[in-house]
Amino acid sequence: MKDFEQQLSYYADITNKELENIFCSSSLPQKSVLDAMRYSLLSGGKRLRAALVLSFCDAMGGDLRKALPYACALEMVHAYSLIHDDLPCMDDDDLRRGKPSCHIKFGEAIALLAGDGLLTMAFETVSSNSLLNSQKNLQSVMILSRAAGVYGMIGGQVMDMENENKKVDITTINKTNLLKTGALIKAACELGVLSSDKDYSLVIDNVRKYAEMIGTAFQIKDDILDFIGSEEILGKPVGSDENNEKTTYVSVLGLEKAEQEAINMANHAKKALHDSNIKSDFLVQLADFVVYRQK
Amino acid sequence: MKDFEQQLSYYADITNKELENIFCSSSLPQKSVLDAMRYSLLSGGKRLRAALVLSFCDAMGGDLRKALPYACALEMVHAYSLIHDDLPCMDDDDLRRGKPSCHIKFGEAIALLAGDGLLTMAFETVSSNSLLNSQKNLQSVMILSRAAGVYGMIGGQVMDMENENKKVDITTINKTNLLKTGALIKAACELGVLSSDKDYSLVIDNVRKYAEMIGTAFQIKDDILDFIGSEEILGKPVGSDENNEKTTYVSVLGLEKAEQEAINMANHAKKALHDSNIKSDFLVQLADFVVYRQK
Repeated sequence: MKDFEQQLSYYADITNKELENIFCSSSLPQKSVLDAMRYSLLSGGKRLRAALVLSFCDAMGGDLRKALPYACALEMVHAYSLIHDDLPCMDDDDLRRGKPSCHIKFGEAIALLAGDGLLTMAFETVSSNSLLNSQKNLQSVMILSRAAGVYGMIGGQVMDMENENKKVDITTINKTNLLKTGALIKAACELGVLSSDKDYSLVIDNVRKYAEMIGTAFQIKDDILDFIGSEEILGKPVGSDENNEKTTYVSVLGLEKAEQEAINMANHAKKALHDSNIKSDFLVQLADFVVYRQK
Repeated sequence: MKDFEQQLSYYADITNKELENIFCSSSLPQKSVLDAMRYSLLSGGKRLRAALVLSFCDAMGGDLRKALPYACALEMVHAYSLIHDDLPCMDDDDLRRGKPSCHIKFGEAIALLAGDGLLTMAFETVSSNSLLNSQKNLQSVMILSRAAGVYGMIGGQVMDMENENKKVDITTINKTNLLKTGALIKAACELGVLSSDKDYSLVIDNVRKYAEMIGTAFQIKDDILDFIGSEEILGKPVGSDENNEKTTYVSVLGLEKAEQEAINMANHAKKALHDSNIKSDFLVQLADFVVYRQK
């Protein structure tokens, strides 16, 4: 996996540099909210969504510079969702990636506005991607807004809240996760293909299938890590799902079957990629990485 | 002002009908958040921002159907900003337009997500305006995201928070309000002109000037109403600015000078409109309405 990890780091690096560029010119009266946005956006993280955008663009033979604004926008949406998720009225998490959550560091009001600011900035970033034409950029706004909205990520968060303190079945968990984490992962893969400026129609169905499979595998692994992980490794309180009485893949399937299900999903993802005729060692290895990562 | 009020009602009506249309097909697992979004979005309000979009489109000889999605999107952004503003970590207001605020009615978590959902839906609505071409719709995403973001409305909210418990001068109040309420009002006027599908470049400077002037007049009048109004008329707690120790136009200028300043601004707005060669009785009367309204 060494090549894979190097490539993942490379994608994270160029994304972080671009994000730094976007923020470097900012020293205005809105400093506190910009500091909070930067704090959450540039505090590490795997940059999985950015890597999906960039690697699909790469695999399609596209120019990475065209994909970078989309990669950045997805990381902005992801960072906003984490800031709002951590707020006291939501999951009330004091730690994120081993550091104080945004609202612990900057106060609730600024954290709320920093989340709002990142979501808004994502659309500004996507719409002003000067290397792609208006039609592509407009399509990217549509893809991103649907994925992030009430019929996508936000809808998943609502379903997740409504599942609490309730016995829910595996179908409901699947539906919830397909929206909560899956929608944005799917958008990342689609935007990667879109940014390559190559023919979209022949591959898109299998790309979406790949995205769904790794999205589900990712969530199963998250549940497993939450169950067995240690606070030190994860950088967030462990067993928080259990404390919140959330039904997870582990609580429904048990640990062993959950692990097997994650592996199955990764295999389905690789099959879909193969069927799309997109050749990419990185995307094959990414399906395994999602399942075998330790944090 | 009878014709003006009829026209304002007409613009509000067609906007409300379009907003109802957008929501009518929705009966999914995300019901609670959709109910909260609908509650805040369709709870009355003057629809000033929608009226600006529609009347500028009208005045430029455009087709109102092209302007309606933009009008709806602006009202979504406005509604989201009010939901988040009312949250306990922000202004902690229990009442909005005489009814329980969104978080009082639906709980904080759903209110937070409803705000997020409305902001996201605004971008979806603008980007899928099928009656205008990709380039116009993309430009509208840029206008809206800049106006709503950290260098626009959110920046203004941050400045407003940072002005609390501090003695600030009139220049700072002006700057704050130009962002906090002015940015969205300016976006409304620009999107109205954009949606008319007529030549933009000749009028845009004066349209922006008109927008700035009525935006400032609107905020001065808000401060005046907050100072002298009654809870029954406004439907929100009165004197909340004083309780929060906010510096307002009234606290800096005094009541009489603040009223005069609002009238001056309305006159400047009418002058800018005249200079733009846009003929619209409605937009002239709107400048007066902003200053003479009683709620």
